[in-house]
Amino acid sequence: MSLIVVGTMAFDAIETPFGKIDKTVGGSATYAAYAASNFVRPIHQVSIVGSDFPKKEMEILRKRGVQMEGVEIVPDKKSFFWSGKYHLDMNTRDTLITDLNVLENFNPVIPDNYKSAEFLMLGNLMPSLQKSVIKQLTTRPKLIVLDTMNFWMETAWDDLREVLNLIDVLLLNDSEARQLTGEYSLVKAARKIFEMGPEYLVIKKGEHGALLFNENNVFFAPALPLEDVFDPTGAGDTFGGGFIGHIAKTKDISFENMKTGIIVGSVMASFCVEKFGTQRLKEITKEDIDIRLNEFVQLVNFDIALV
Amino acid sequence: MSLIVVGTMAFDAIETPFGKIDKTVGGSATYAAYAASNFVRPIHQVSIVGSDFPKKEMEILRKRGVQMEGVEIVPDKKSFFWSGKYHLDMNTRDTLITDLNVLENFNPVIPDNYKSAEFLMLGNLMPSLQKSVIKQLTTRPKLIVLDTMNFWMETAWDDLREVLNLIDVLLLNDSEARQLTGEYSLVKAARKIFEMGPEYLVIKKGEHGALLFNENNVFFAPALPLEDVFDPTGAGDTFGGGFIGHIAKTKDISFENMKTGIIVGSVMASFCVEKFGTQRLKEITKEDIDIRLNEFVQLVNFDIALV
Repeated sequence: MSLIVVGTMAFDAIETPFGKIDKTVGGSATYAAYAASNFVRPIHQVSIVGSDFPKKEMEILRKRGVQMEGVEIVPDKKSFFWSGKYHLDMNTRDTLITDLNVLENFNPVIPDNYKSAEFLMLGNLMPSLQKSVIKQLTTRPKLIVLDTMNFWMETAWDDLREVLNLIDVLLLNDSEARQLTGEYSLVKAARKIFEMGPEYLVIKKGEHGALLFNENNVFFAPALPLEDVFDPTGAGDTFGGGFIGHIAKTKDISFENMKTGIIVGSVMASFCVEKFGTQRLKEITKEDIDIRLNEFVQLVNFDIALV
Repeated sequence: MSLIVVGTMAFDAIETPFGKIDKTVGGSATYAAYAASNFVRPIHQVSIVGSDFPKKEMEILRKRGVQMEGVEIVPDKKSFFWSGKYHLDMNTRDTLITDLNVLENFNPVIPDNYKSAEFLMLGNLMPSLQKSVIKQLTTRPKLIVLDTMNFWMETAWDDLREVLNLIDVLLLNDSEARQLTGEYSLVKAARKIFEMGPEYLVIKKGEHGALLFNENNVFFAPALPLEDVFDPTGAGDTFGGGFIGHIAKTKDISFENMKTGIIVGSVMASFCVEKFGTQRLKEITKEDIDIRLNEFVQLVNFDIALV
């Protein structure tokens, strides 16, 4: 059940209509590891941090089975820092600050004992680095999942197109799928993305749920309607971590099982948004997850026989 | 199986990123009647038009079982006219022109043989007129469904609050639910709306599907991902017509059956958006509807047993 999670481990400053926090632990690989570690252990983490990254956070992750041999710690440098402000609708945000810091010279080196991992989660990161990780593996993983964002479409198009050719599942939000393909219709966008390499496409739509496309199949999972949506930061990474965590646990890469992966991802994301940063993900238990999975089933459960 | 449909019958001018049409038949009651008539006949239509409203359109509706005794035709006056332009995301639009015309002096008179109808669909219209219709009925319908919009929250707040006290099911879109209650969380918004009168709340989210709330129950139905979304005008009214059409056909007002109503509404709306105006709704057959209902089941069908 070996899973590599690649991405950023960072600090975020976040402002939402409901609150403000100047510095909290974040990063795509942090969120993904918190989510996935509920389903599969160990997790081989690949990232880079500065000397300012909290030892305590590393320790909490280690205790959850997240192995840190692949996390480079750069002395006397600062961790990646992102600052953003959410609009009132919570679905859109402005980036205020992006300080690359240690990320500027990141050259991920995959430890030898990771190189035959069965599952690979490439969290949001420079596409060239995502590609470099794939190239270092000695055996091709059963499933490679890649998350990316509009920023790389604008600044690293060629690298992104190259790495898309090497992966199985692409995770995007709806506006990114439209930007990547120039198609408004998500059905048409999916078809174009399949021509770029991936066989599966997951479109994350935040509070509006997620779509899974494969060939001519489509599956839709809603987001749970929540009492409080506090901070959407990391929800997409958490979704990805829950998805790959379920797949790695079951070792089943069929479309049917990916549907369940999407639901598990949605459930994990629903916890993430309830508090700032990774706070809520640290608190939840297996029982909390099971209760919410059950709520999910109730939410979409229907009998069409009446029609 | 008697159903009253109240609302506008009108002309629209529409511009979307995919095309432009200067004059097409529209109106909340027109769309609702087209949708509902696939499931229940006769439909008692209540509306007002000018002498410019096409006789042919009335004839097509009549042939679908839509009875016109309650549709006032005002000689030498023009029908209600709305013009709007959709943004690139197709989920938001600007109203360019609203010419009330005949609507300015509309005073709906319910024919005697309608007054004991079992089901009442109050399409989007001035809240005072929606109330007037309810007051004219001799027996309280089994179910009263009301659609409204942000415009009435801004211009007819007191009338709207009054009519909300008299109905069972409120249809709104997500931003309207937030505006009506001042709550960002749709779960909290639903709770506030229940305090205003309705026992059921349906939140229409366009391409993102629809939510049904009742007490502590929630049900979610996605929108079908479509190859082409051409013109969203009338999709909400069509959704309402499909919903009440299914309820009136089955005469079952349980939460379980409303779930199916939401799905039927989503399916009907998915046809509406494929062409300008009511065009697509005129073409489709029972078989088309059944095929799409089946696509819907595939879209959301999953087995959580693996978790």
